[in-house]
Amino acid sequence: MGRVQVVGGGVIGLSCAWELSRNGHAVTLVAPAPGCEGASWVAAGMLAPVTEAQFGESALTALLLEGARRWPAFAAALEKAAGHPIGYDTTGTLTVGLNASDRASLDDLLAYQHSLGLRAERRSASECRALVPALSPALRGGIEVPGDHHVDNRALLRALVRACVAAGVTLVEGTVATLEPGPGLVLADGRRLVADHVVLAAGTGLPAIAGLEHAGLPALRPVKGHVLRLGPPGPPDRLRARTVPLLTRTVRGLVRGRSVYLVPRRDGSMVIGATVEERGIDVAVQAGAVHELLCDARELVPGVDELELVEAAAGLRPATPDNTPRIGWTGLDGVVAAVGHYRNGILLAPLTAAAVVDLVGRRPVAPLIEALAPA
Amino acid sequence: MGRVQVVGGGVIGLSCAWELSRNGHAVTLVAPAPGCEGASWVAAGMLAPVTEAQFGESALTALLLEGARRWPAFAAALEKAAGHPIGYDTTGTLTVGLNASDRASLDDLLAYQHSLGLRAERRSASECRALVPALSPALRGGIEVPGDHHVDNRALLRALVRACVAAGVTLVEGTVATLEPGPGLVLADGRRLVADHVVLAAGTGLPAIAGLEHAGLPALRPVKGHVLRLGPPGPPDRLRARTVPLLTRTVRGLVRGRSVYLVPRRDGSMVIGATVEERGIDVAVQAGAVHELLCDARELVPGVDELELVEAAAGLRPATPDNTPRIGWTGLDGVVAAVGHYRNGILLAPLTAAAVVDLVGRRPVAPLIEALAPA
Repeated sequence: MGRVQVVGGGVIGLSCAWELSRNGHAVTLVAPAPGCEGASWVAAGMLAPVTEAQFGESALTALLLEGARRWPAFAAALEKAAGHPIGYDTTGTLTVGLNASDRASLDDLLAYQHSLGLRAERRSASECRALVPALSPALRGGIEVPGDHHVDNRALLRALVRACVAAGVTLVEGTVATLEPGPGLVLADGRRLVADHVVLAAGTGLPAIAGLEHAGLPALRPVKGHVLRLGPPGPPDRLRARTVPLLTRTVRGLVRGRSVYLVPRRDGSMVIGATVEERGIDVAVQAGAVHELLCDARELVPGVDELELVEAAAGLRPATPDNTPRIGWTGLDGVVAAVGHYRNGILLAPLTAAAVVDLVGRRPVAPLIEALAPA
Repeated sequence: MGRVQVVGGGVIGLSCAWELSRNGHAVTLVAPAPGCEGASWVAAGMLAPVTEAQFGESALTALLLEGARRWPAFAAALEKAAGHPIGYDTTGTLTVGLNASDRASLDDLLAYQHSLGLRAERRSASECRALVPALSPALRGGIEVPGDHHVDNRALLRALVRACVAAGVTLVEGTVATLEPGPGLVLADGRRLVADHVVLAAGTGLPAIAGLEHAGLPALRPVKGHVLRLGPPGPPDRLRARTVPLLTRTVRGLVRGRSVYLVPRRDGSMVIGATVEERGIDVAVQAGAVHELLCDARELVPGVDELELVEAAAGLRPATPDNTPRIGWTGLDGVVAAVGHYRNGILLAPLTAAAVVDLVGRRPVAPLIEALAPA
């Protein structure tokens, strides 16, 4: 037991803070805007170990699958601690291809998924439309993935903040300027905080912190993603007894080789994402990216046209050179890293937080986690 | 001279209030948010008597041309009164057609413009690109219209509010619930205002005012328009000495039969509009409309992709059954109407305000205005 400072107010920092506090540590979390910042805030909330499996990243896929196994218990405990639902939905995901070339790419992907032992089923175009009636008649079939789920990322962040506060975590709004040996933190406004342990979970904010030269962390690059939030259609008219949500499961798609996803919320709204752009620190919303997302989404689900455009935003995913996170002791005394979760921060938050509790408690971690040690 | 109450805080209401006050009347303007509301706020600010000339609306075109003639003196007086520029730009407009069919439609339009004696010149594709280098190489030529100009609509509204205040206009933030004989106004919060004259300039808010049954006004319908505001690109990079604005003149276009316009601002930003939708009172921003505008704009000017999407909004243009405004005495004692300016409120504001000053002063108005009397 001891004083732990967590740097970062996204899903990783908040999950670590909550779990550390539940395990008896005195936890302070420092972030500019805990629960309302970073990639977690902009994200869509997919929990997708299977549809995020990329050729050549089978080790990462094993990690994502282990992350997914932690979710049911984590969601139940968090909803109980926070006292409100987080939109955790296990209906499953359907990936569709628009044209014959997209269909062929999906068949290659399906073969790869099966080679890893992942659960995924080829579906004809009509089977896809039976699962998701809002799909365009033009598409050429797809893959049903029952094990890829989603959560309402903003409800999740709200719940984590509430659970942290309820568990006794001290939330400090501020920007960490320097990590000092000790370890200790110096904030941009001059405040100093000392601790027994520091957990670095600052996402793309990490490189701006001084004093990390000997931490042994890899370079983190920001990978920009544009995301749209669409509201539900207006009140039901006289011809409809009630508003029927356009989607009740996550739809991913290949549209002439370009990836897009549509993640529904329970109120009939949805989140559409995401571009993948390497442009440095830049969160300006670009007209071309908004156009691309709308084009591809409406090609898969034409009813998107009728929804209200509520928000267009861009976030920065923190990525390591091999797109795999670093979780473990750094080269600095008392400093643990939980960084570089790239596209999978929400999926991996329960697993990462449990690993950080083990690390801070000086307990052994599973080989899967041990392999992620930065130093 | 007397007490005049102006109902409406858009460009028509503010222009009337300013001109009435400059002519010795004691003016009160009542609106929910003077200078920040209605179609004027969402508009792009085109001053376009020629490119807005529609087949079968030659009487309206004559009115628009007279409106345009008032603009240079109005802009100069307003900039002087407000003490800041309003982005009044007389560079001219270029209308382009994307494909052969659009080009043919433009030729028909050009013949119509010439039949009305309007100044417009056929331009080849290369001539168009010489005028506007940012245009797509794909387009098939266009029409140069030197007499269609633009103004920064929001700078114009700010200037009108300042000029009104400087001229002694009392601005009352409130919603008019009822027009009473007298005439007088009852606001939604119960406040009562009495006057010698009332000028109705409430745009699409007019039908919500009680007591207008015997005014003799035609039905006003709201015509929805989506408009996008795009910011300038980021700071210049090392390869460019300075940021070159994408456009320096208004570009209108036909894109496979669909109309779009791009109106530049002096800071490199631009306004893209506008859909024309008859959906009742509905200012929700729809995904399909945003998609349509981005699609068409980037097809004409590909560099649009690189601009920041700063705002997507929808406004309601107040339209009469014949799309022509009603300016004149109503059937109610002391009540003047200046309503139904549809797509041309900004262009017609100087002319309308001058006419309202004449009407309130019981002076004769030109036959052009006389023809617009509602009752």
